[in-house]
Amino acid sequence: MPTVESTITTMARAARSAATQLGRASSEQKNAALMAIAAGLEKKAALIQAENRKDLIQAEENGLSAAMIDRLSVKDETISSMISGLFEIAALNDPVGAMGPASIRPNGLQVARMRIPLGVIGIIYESRPNVTVDAAALCLKAGNAVILRGGSEAFHSNQALAQTIGQALNDSGLPQTSVQVVPLREREAVLALLGQEDLIDLIIPRGGEGLIRFVAENSKIPVLKHYKGVCHIYVDDEADPEMAQEICFNAKVQRPGVCNAMETLLVHKAVADDFLTRMCGQFAGAGVEIRGCDLTRRIFPDAKKAEESDWAAEYLDLILAIKVVDDLDAAIDHMAAYSSQHTEAIVTRNYDRARRFVREVDSSVVLVNASTRFNDGGQLGMGAEIGISTTKLHAFGPMGLEELTTTKFVVHGSGQIRK
Amino acid sequence: MPTVESTITTMARAARSAATQLGRASSEQKNAALMAIAAGLEKKAALIQAENRKDLIQAEENGLSAAMIDRLSVKDETISSMISGLFEIAALNDPVGAMGPASIRPNGLQVARMRIPLGVIGIIYESRPNVTVDAAALCLKAGNAVILRGGSEAFHSNQALAQTIGQALNDSGLPQTSVQVVPLREREAVLALLGQEDLIDLIIPRGGEGLIRFVAENSKIPVLKHYKGVCHIYVDDEADPEMAQEICFNAKVQRPGVCNAMETLLVHKAVADDFLTRMCGQFAGAGVEIRGCDLTRRIFPDAKKAEESDWAAEYLDLILAIKVVDDLDAAIDHMAAYSSQHTEAIVTRNYDRARRFVREVDSSVVLVNASTRFNDGGQLGMGAEIGISTTKLHAFGPMGLEELTTTKFVVHGSGQIRK
Repeated sequence: MPTVESTITTMARAARSAATQLGRASSEQKNAALMAIAAGLEKKAALIQAENRKDLIQAEENGLSAAMIDRLSVKDETISSMISGLFEIAALNDPVGAMGPASIRPNGLQVARMRIPLGVIGIIYESRPNVTVDAAALCLKAGNAVILRGGSEAFHSNQALAQTIGQALNDSGLPQTSVQVVPLREREAVLALLGQEDLIDLIIPRGGEGLIRFVAENSKIPVLKHYKGVCHIYVDDEADPEMAQEICFNAKVQRPGVCNAMETLLVHKAVADDFLTRMCGQFAGAGVEIRGCDLTRRIFPDAKKAEESDWAAEYLDLILAIKVVDDLDAAIDHMAAYSSQHTEAIVTRNYDRARRFVREVDSSVVLVNASTRFNDGGQLGMGAEIGISTTKLHAFGPMGLEELTTTKFVVHGSGQIRK
Repeated sequence: MPTVESTITTMARAARSAATQLGRASSEQKNAALMAIAAGLEKKAALIQAENRKDLIQAEENGLSAAMIDRLSVKDETISSMISGLFEIAALNDPVGAMGPASIRPNGLQVARMRIPLGVIGIIYESRPNVTVDAAALCLKAGNAVILRGGSEAFHSNQALAQTIGQALNDSGLPQTSVQVVPLREREAVLALLGQEDLIDLIIPRGGEGLIRFVAENSKIPVLKHYKGVCHIYVDDEADPEMAQEICFNAKVQRPGVCNAMETLLVHKAVADDFLTRMCGQFAGAGVEIRGCDLTRRIFPDAKKAEESDWAAEYLDLILAIKVVDDLDAAIDHMAAYSSQHTEAIVTRNYDRARRFVREVDSSVVLVNASTRFNDGGQLGMGAEIGISTTKLHAFGPMGLEELTTTKFVVHGSGQIRK
């Protein structure tokens, strides 16, 4: 009977060996494998959904919320969206092997950087089974082997997806162990994975803050982290008021449950009266609960009083904190104190303030006159994303294929030696 | 009486606040500060050397080796070299604020990446006091605050350097806490530093493998690691034999004690007889001890027998392991098994093999027809380096100013909202 530890080590060794082959695979080979996975999902949809039903029955027995059961459910549309995701990733440029500009050193050496895969990536995530396919496809396209560890509530769904992916890889002549799903439900399996620092190059956790903190605290392997999105918009006194209102409404209401939705609105005191009267009216009409500073409550008396904890809150809901500020400096200071370095925007027609905001606000995406909702790999032109990093090492902001790679130096000489 | 923990936390908070100001400082301000540090070192040379003598006396009492005492010693030339290093770093391009190419999204959003400082960097190193000045200057130029923790044997030297640097920063109008040297000798101070994950963004250890493993195992902060350099050269049967001999001799003998010196030579069997006869003769004349495989020993009977451990050894000395291999595949397989992913070179006139070597060898620097000794930030055109990373996250290979920064996304719009 193999132990949890030995099972994970065996998987990590197999991944390492697959990574060597994958790193040398051509884009054609990798794209063919992605297409084979898509075909496999289509063919085995009924089987995958039958396995998914086992998870759903278990979830109902365990009393999971309707929202969680919905996220766990592999519907026909879920399969279609997995398949279209695979087509999308196959269509992206392959970053591997691309070379940057070459420079010639005084001694004639030609020096350039070549993009290469990271090697083996571990992904630890919660319930949604579509992550299994999306994450596997992105890692594969970037030439990395991947070990996936989904939530135990999606156990049967993920195993069925893993079998389909493995079969497709095998049929395409790429190592079947390029994509592996951990076949263990125990939490020890996560700890065992996080201890494989000699075989795994990077861990990406995807899920709530609790999961991410658990992974960051227990990992001996570098972790790319996404904590939370406490996103701000600052409406300047030189903002176009209609534009500001449209942007703020979009950032809060279009999809309140996501990390790039606005959580705090800062408004310059000189325009607070006019702007907040109309803005809060529109928010109230859309069912947004306002928690404001004293000035906000004087302008919009229906607002609740914002407590200190509101300035740091990621509501992920139709709730908004509002503060009236003296000027741009006060807005920037407020963000420095409370933002999660995720996404911040300014609305202004003032050139100098736009430039200062861009330069001084320390967040992964800073926007001028646009909604915070654009912090997304697809929206920023990077193609599909594997997540958003809110810490600065290796990647800061949305992570696409390129962020799943690194570079090495390639030096071409004609016999140069060091004097 | 403050505890170790509270002293380090206070330093880290001060560094974080300095980092905000430094991140906004212009290149002119930062360069002026570097020049002020240089002037300060010149003016206070006698005082620094007097403090250094305290360390040297202690080192002799503690029975440190002559080589270690030499590295600890701040001679007149040490001060001059610190000063010229500062001039060199002031002359480098400032990476902060530089923007990459901008793309326009279909909705008109303009998207680009801006290079920004990492924030606060912790550097943990062993005896040489010149690291104090070099590392501080590189971090400062890249807009980062830095906390330095040198070896306890250099305690007085580093404190004197810290005072000089602090005074110069103050005179230049930059926060004095931009550069801080830990004023504690206890090892707990290192542990306390490694636990400041909310205030410090990156740890760079510089020193022997023991120090680096200790830091990597105990850090909650991301670490850029340089383990060791087990560098290989593969001499192909289509190599220019004279070029191969010059390159191999340079890579082993020019400076054997450094991480980019060759430690293992692989030779194609078809040319082993001729090549190794001449090569080993030249090595023997330079006092290089050869540890060879059976074939090598048949060609050069003075060679000792290479044990399994020799293939993984970083000698840092006039010792070389030599293996005769069947072909390029065997050479690549040997490197995959034993290399430290630091630096590997091929000598060949064969186009396909050069291309395969470049693509398939998984090391931070791969060279064709040039000495491994070129894995160095200055030699590759990056300017001064803060170290060489042998792991892949964030940086792989020599790390210059750019590797002490990251990028954020800057988005300019005209009222765009997400549909």
